[in-house]
Parts: sequence; structure tokens; C-alpha cells
Amino acid sequence: MQGLYFDGNLELKELPRPEPGPGEVLIRVSLAGVCRTDLEVLKGYHGFKGVLGHEFVGRVAGPTASPWLGQRVVGEINIGCGDCDLCRRGLPNHCRGRQVLGLIGRDGAFAQFLTLPERNLHPVPDELPDDAAVFTEPLAAALQVLETTPISPGARIMVVGDGRLGLLVSWVLALTGAAVHLTGHHEEHLALAAPYGVGAFLEKDLPAGDYDVVVEASGSPGGLDLALARVRPRGAVVLKSTYTGRYPLDPARLVVPEVRLLGSRCGPFAAALRLLQQGRVDPSPLVARSFPLSQGQEALEWARRSGVLKVLLDCRQTG
Amino acid sequence: MQGLYFDGNLELKELPRPEPGPGEVLIRVSLAGVCRTDLEVLKGYHGFKGVLGHEFVGRVAGPTASPWLGQRVVGEINIGCGDCDLCRRGLPNHCRGRQVLGLIGRDGAFAQFLTLPERNLHPVPDELPDDAAVFTEPLAAALQVLETTPISPGARIMVVGDGRLGLLVSWVLALTGAAVHLTGHHEEHLALAAPYGVGAFLEKDLPAGDYDVVVEASGSPGGLDLALARVRPRGAVVLKSTYTGRYPLDPARLVVPEVRLLGSRCGPFAAALRLLQQGRVDPSPLVARSFPLSQGQEALEWARRSGVLKVLLDCRQTG
Repeated sequence: MQGLYFDGNLELKELPRPEPGPGEVLIRVSLAGVCRTDLEVLKGYHGFKGVLGHEFVGRVAGPTASPWLGQRVVGEINIGCGDCDLCRRGLPNHCRGRQVLGLIGRDGAFAQFLTLPERNLHPVPDELPDDAAVFTEPLAAALQVLETTPISPGARIMVVGDGRLGLLVSWVLALTGAAVHLTGHHEEHLALAAPYGVGAFLEKDLPAGDYDVVVEASGSPGGLDLALARVRPRGAVVLKSTYTGRYPLDPARLVVPEVRLLGSRCGPFAAALRLLQQGRVDPSPLVARSFPLSQGQEALEWARRSGVLKVLLDCRQTG
Repeated sequence: MQGLYFDGNLELKELPRPEPGPGEVLIRVSLAGVCRTDLEVLKGYHGFKGVLGHEFVGRVAGPTASPWLGQRVVGEINIGCGDCDLCRRGLPNHCRGRQVLGLIGRDGAFAQFLTLPERNLHPVPDELPDDAAVFTEPLAAALQVLETTPISPGARIMVVGDGRLGLLVSWVLALTGAAVHLTGHHEEHLALAAPYGVGAFLEKDLPAGDYDVVVEASGSPGGLDLALARVRPRGAVVLKSTYTGRYPLDPARLVVPEVRLLGSRCGPFAAALRLLQQGRVDPSPLVARSFPLSQGQEALEWARRSGVLKVLLDCRQTG
């Protein structure tokens, strides 16, 4: 099969089709999405070598005995050992020995096929097209903000960062009834917030006043700086994005106002699928461009440009 | 009256006796405690000028019409405006226009007299001696950890820092039934943890394994580094101490394990007084040395040495 392989260099390679282990299935990938984390991996994040990609929708292609055979699916990306203290505590996403699709120890979705355990799968409703279902993983990550901190419908919330994740976060937070402001640097992205009732502002135009909750989704140290400047005392800053580099934290900025700084990562797939199926979230304006898998290198090069929203790979189109 | 005044230089001065405003009382200070924050102020923290000190016990000396006259008291140190959004939300400790005794806009406790609003006062039970009551403020700050994050009695907890605050925190957390480990650099301080059932370890001897909650009370960037290294995924790090300087935060250390970093400051005086009165916490081993107010400069010089526990000032003893 073809796959987009990274080992310091990124290359489209002819690779052996992966073999599903016990309890696993083989999935033929239809569409895959490029995430900022994939671009960080290209810079050395996680030290990963293998097939990139963790956002996908596909169809189960084997083994023939699997009850999932032929089913269109999306899949959770963390694969816990099932046996350690964290897995037993119900936190397989945090298993210390976990594999993560396209990120840690398991080849990912920028290929014709991938494998995942059956327990990681979620069926995609028939009426949900592939180009919406492929957003299940990032939408679930956006919904994880609601798992990370309670959001009161009376709250005043700011989301920092008008990229793909920041937009998705602002949309799902607005669904709670809370007053949500989104800030960023791209007027054409900020415009995508309006249909959800999100107030969108260039950073220089942000209204005065504190926020009960600030979500940092900009992937830059400046975003965290802005978050800490604008969160109210006893408020929460939810960190959604990682980046290489360090933020010079003044501990007094947390201790004196008793602010909470909360890491937040992967989220609930089932809830994301429900919102997509109900049409509460329409990710289609986020799609910047779709490339065939055969042009995978160009796709990642293009995704890396500043101001580009979601880039999709059509993994049925090979060279 | 005499008072220990800081305006870039620290000097014992003859100062006018402060005048209580409406709703305030004049308090004759009996004992005052030196806090690490006082030492930070000497390095420029808060840019404070005035009489230092915020830990005290004293007796109300006026006005004669006050129902508090003659009462032995301790006092909360934050003075909110009573009128802003945060005061109305029940968060006067976080009022943006607040004064803080000996730290922001109000002369403090290293003097013969101070003033505070009546609403800041707590009566000291007769059976509680001054040299225990003077620990009410730091003990309340230690108890604030329990307000900052729920502590399960089944939790495994580490406290980083074997100074005054770290010891108090380890003691009150052990009262919940949780398994508490204290770590630091001073064997003679660590020994004070044993009577409370706290396991005490030099950093190099810390047992393996993650902690559900880590409390950073060391006042150094290295303490936060250790906390983040040892907290479990989905665990909490409570920040109790500020310091000048910055901690180079890698956001992935919060985002990937979904760790919570929680600022925590002033705490519940009434609960602190209850624990002191009931003898659940005995602060007497924490007293390193007591100085008369007339030797205030020497007292702060002495408190600044590494490894010194609580230094008290007897403000009835003037030169």
C-alpha cells in the first residue's frame, strides 16, 4: 500500500499493508485530516517515525470474521495496554505504555490502510458524509474543554486562536449558551464564528473586561500570555495546544489570583458524532483544500502555511 | 509608635499611630510572624513601601465604642472595596482595588499598632496562647489547598518544600487520611513531619511512583519541575509559593497528561483557629526564634538564612 512515511524525511512510500493483531481490525482509509500536531512531528515532536496522521474516516476491511466488517468508522487514537493502573482507572488515553495512532508507536492514517483495536471504533451514521465525519477527532478534542472545566451558561469565555481547533472550540462552547469571544489574527477565519453567535475580534479590538474561562488554542506562547492577562481571579485557563519552546511562567500570575491552568487533550468521540449528525456543528467551511494521498507531501507543505485551515487527504486517490 | 518600615531600606522608625477609619479598629500587636513573602518584599516584590508584616495576634485597643474593644484577635489580611464585581461575587480577597496588610497599600504588623476593618477580625479563644494564634494566617493559607482541589482520603500526595508552609500543608493534608509525603533538603525540618504520620524524604530518597496531587511550597522553580515530573496523568499540582523569576513551562507537560496547575493563596481563618484550638495542629516546633520588635532588622536578617523556620517578633518589646 502507499503511505506517507516520516523518518526525519517525509516521503510517500510503498509499504507493507499492516496486519491487525488480536481484537483489531484493518481499516481502508477514505479521508484523513492534517492536524497541527502532524506538523509539529515534522519538527521532531514525540520523535515519531512511521506513517503520520490520526484524523480519519474509513471502512473496516478485515478480518472477515469481525462484526465490524464493511462498517464505516472513525476511531479513537489512543491504544492503552488495558492492564496498568491508569487503564484500570478508566484512563486508557493516559496509559504510560500507550500507542497513539500516527504519533507514538503505531502507523497512522496518511495511508491506504491502518489498524486499530475494535474497542477504539465508532460507527459513522449513514447520513454523515466522509468530509464531515473526518472532523470527529478534532471536534472531540474541542469538546474536551467541557470535560476539563465546568462551563456555566452564564459564563463569559474567550478562545485564543482562530485556527481549526480554536474555531471548533468556540462553536461548541457557544452551544452551551455561554457568551463566547474568539480572538486571532485572520479576519477570514474570524468570520466563520458569526453563524454560531460567537463574537470575533482581532486581538487589538478585544473588548475590555475579564473572562471567566479562557481557552488557549493558538499554539504560541503569546496566546498563553494573553490568556493569563485576561482571565478573572479564580478563573480557568484551558490549554489545548502544545508547541516546541517554553513559556516563561511567573508563578505569581497563578498564585495571587488563584487562577487554574488546565491541560486538555483528546475528547469524547460519541458526543462529537452526535453534534455532527444533528448538524449543530458544520465543519465544511473549515476545509481549505483536499489533496490526493499521492500528493501528500505537497498537502503537508501547504498545511504548514500560516492562515491555512483544514487540509484533507483523499487516501483512495493514489498515484 | 515604633514600626519596621521599608522604603527600599528597612529601618525601625518612630511613626504616627495609625487612625482607624469607619468600620475599622485599632489593634495593639502582641506577636507577629515573619513570612517568606516579607523577605520577597525586601527584594522588591509588590513594590511595597510601608510597615511590613501580615501575620499577627493582638488586642483591640480602640475605638472605645467598638464591640471588639479589649478582644484578643487575629485578622484576615485582604481588605476589599466591598463594591466591585469580585467583592459582590464573594471574592473580596481578589478585589482588584484591595489593600493587603503589610503588602499592598496598608501598613502591616511589624509595629506596635495596626488598623483593620472589624469584618476582617476573628476572636482568639482564651485557651489559645499568642504563640499558637500567630500561626492562624499561615495555617489558613495551608488549608486553602483543600479549597483549591478536592483531596480524596484515598489519595497519594506529595508536598514539595520543607519550610514553614510546606510543613503546615503536609500536616493538614495528613489530617484528611490521605497518604502524604513531604520532600525537602533539611533533615531537621523533615523530622517535624513524623508526628502527623507524614512520610518525609530527602529529594534523592523519594519513593517511586506517581502522586495524585502535588503541592509546590518550595518557592523555587526546581520545586515546580519536580512536581510536574511526579504528578500522575489527570492529577493536580497546587502552587502555593511565588518567587521572583520565571519557570520555563513546556505546555506539553500539562496538555498531554491533562494535568491541572492550580494557584492557591489565602485561606479560611475560622478553620485554622478550630484546628489550633483542638490541638490538631501544634505549630510550636516551627518557632525558630523570637526577637523583640526593637531588633526587627536583625530578625528579618536572621529569617532570610536558608533553613530557618518561623521567626517571631514580640511587638510589645520596644527599644
